[in-house]
Parts: sequence; structure tokens; C-alpha cells
Amino acid sequence: MTAMAKRHKKINFISFEGLDGSGKTTQINLLAKYCECEKINFLVIREPGSSLIGEKIRIILKDNGNNFMDAKAELFLFMAARAQLMREKIIPALQKEILIVCDRFIDSSVAYQGIARNLGENFVKQMNDFATDNIKPDLTFFLDVTPEIIFKRKNKNLDRFETEGLDFYQKVYSGYKKIFCEEENKNRAVFIDGNLKCDEIHEMILNKLFA
Amino acid sequence: MTAMAKRHKKINFISFEGLDGSGKTTQINLLAKYCECEKINFLVIREPGSSLIGEKIRIILKDNGNNFMDAKAELFLFMAARAQLMREKIIPALQKEILIVCDRFIDSSVAYQGIARNLGENFVKQMNDFATDNIKPDLTFFLDVTPEIIFKRKNKNLDRFETEGLDFYQKVYSGYKKIFCEEENKNRAVFIDGNLKCDEIHEMILNKLFA
Repeated sequence: MTAMAKRHKKINFISFEGLDGSGKTTQINLLAKYCECEKINFLVIREPGSSLIGEKIRIILKDNGNNFMDAKAELFLFMAARAQLMREKIIPALQKEILIVCDRFIDSSVAYQGIARNLGENFVKQMNDFATDNIKPDLTFFLDVTPEIIFKRKNKNLDRFETEGLDFYQKVYSGYKKIFCEEENKNRAVFIDGNLKCDEIHEMILNKLFA
Repeated sequence: MTAMAKRHKKINFISFEGLDGSGKTTQINLLAKYCECEKINFLVIREPGSSLIGEKIRIILKDNGNNFMDAKAELFLFMAARAQLMREKIIPALQKEILIVCDRFIDSSVAYQGIARNLGENFVKQMNDFATDNIKPDLTFFLDVTPEIIFKRKNKNLDRFETEGLDFYQKVYSGYKKIFCEEENKNRAVFIDGNLKCDEIHEMILNKLFA
């Protein structure tokens, strides 16, 4: 792109979803760099986190030192971080028309806790609606990499989620696919083959976001 | 009581509710002392807390150093602590028929977050049911002291909740009264005049619990 990048209207809030290790953070960093160069007003946030309280919750959630964490407690902790993030960061940024780029959001809870942990897809959606005041991302990029491929790449220093087995990640993966094919979600879902090269994926994302 | 105290059948789980400063902790301590003397198998727990994760959540909830805490985030944090406490402590203790004595439980969330913070009584009840697998205390002692009296007693070192104004505590107080008059709750609710002397209240509690 040579001309000044312009955001597509009605794209103010995007999220990235995918398994741990699917390349979300890499793509978000490339996008952030691009926005900086193009002087696009943007805000990168991550879930859980990106607020004082949310980062404290993140530490609890990721900690491997907990004896065990109840699945319902886990769900509520994610929802607490999300509710805080909405009021503290997302809603104010939406009001200023800043491009919000979120590393994980509502779909993670449905896939991980609702489907893979079996707490109920509809219940988790209801929690999401309450936590977010029904605000959804305008676009959600799903970086599609299978758990089998991700498991080959895995390394050390794994957090509480990353130590889950292949079986768990298979449930999350098929959960994601189910969610993004649902009527209510398919218009905002952008499937991206996460096995492509970094810069190819980056280009595809830019094409979706900028004219 | 001179004879060996015997627990009333079907009282395995009791909770104490009331405003901060209504004397819950004092009464729980007296009850614990009594159980020790009488060799009654008991477990004192508090909400939020009494689990590794719950105590971490408690620190976040009570901290005055947070910029601000969203009311929905607050609700979810209490629910996370409750869900963890259920699976880690309450359900195992119920299985062993240990007398569980809980400092605050489901009714606090309905009164504080559902009613006083206006998040919706029914929504909070639904969260409670999910967090607790519909398990309720067999008896709930409500230590009835008005906010006006409590505000006269208040001192230093107040946490995030204790710094709330009289107006907030009036809502909590009338919320409690509403909850404990409801059909679904009134059978387990025991109203106690919290202005009575410590040992009088203690005796009333013993009379309810032991034959």
C-alpha cells in the first residue's frame, strides 16, 4: 500500500482468536507496527488483562502453583477481567473511535470454558453478554492452526493452560470452528490459515481492515 | 448447657450475614470456641476467601488502591471465589458431615451486588445457583443492626467496601430484609437483633444449632 491507509468504516473493534501458539501475538505486533507507521489511532489490549485489576486476575489464572482451579471459578475470573476491561478501556476507546485490537475476547470463553470445559455454551454466552453489555467485535480473526501442529511446536515454561493435553485443545479447536460457523457470529468471523507465512497473513489482515 | 451438645439433624451448613460491623466475626469466633470445647467437628470459612485462589481474589476485592472497580467485575470476582470454595472446601466438608460455618455467602452477593449495586437480584441468584450447584445453607443468621448504628461505630483502616457511604449501606440493609422475607429463603433465615449483648446472641445461636 502506498497511499495513506484508511480504516474501513464500521471497523472499530477487532479481536484475534486461536489456540495458544497459533500466531495471534505475532500478528497483533505486526498490525500495531503498521498502525504506528500509518498514524492510525489504535489500542492493543489482551485478555485477561490490560487493566490494573485484569492483570492481577491474569496472574491468578495463569499460575501453575494453584493446587487446582475449579472450572467455574476460572470462567468467573475471565468474566471479571472482561467486565473491568469493557468499562475501563474498550467502551471509552469506542467512544473516541480508536481502533481496538484485542488478543482474545468473548469467543475464547465460549471455546475454552463453555465447550472444552463443558460449562455450557449458552451459559457462557449469557455471561459474555452481561460482562460486555452485548458489545461484540466488528471483526474476529481466527488463526486456524490445528492442535496437532501446535503440539509439535510446544516448548518450555508453559502456563496453566498451555500444560493442558491434546484432547483439551482438540475440544477448544472444534469449539472455535462451531462458534464461527454460527449464524450470530459468522459475519464477523475471518478464518485465516495460520500455517501461511507471517507476512502473508499480515497482508490478508491489512486487506480486511484498510482501504 | 451441661449435657454434651448434639447437633440438630439436617444442620450441616450455616452462614452469617449482616452489614460490615454487625458482629458476625465475633459470633463466629464464639461459636468456634464452643465447638472446640464440645468436640464438634466444624469448619469456619469466610467469603471471599478460605482457599488459596479465594484469598488472592479477596486481596483484589478489598484493595483500596485499585483505580476503580467495575460493579460487574466485582460480582464475578465474588462468584469466582465462591465457586472455588464450593469444590475445594464446602462440598468435601458436607460429604464428611462437618459443621460448616461460613462468614458471608450467597445472600451477600444478592444484597450488595444484586440490590445495592443494582445488577439485578435474579441475575445474581442465577450466578449463585451456578457457582454453588444450587447448594444453600441450612440456616442463615442475619445479624440485624441498622446502617445508622453501624456508621456511629466506624473507625479507621477501612477497606474498599467499608468506605462506601450510608446510602449504599441502607440499600444493602433493605436488600437483606427483602431476601430473608422471600418464600424461598425465609425457612433458613434467622433474624437476630444484633444490638443485644454478645453472649445473649451467642446463646440464641447455640439454641438454634444444638439440642
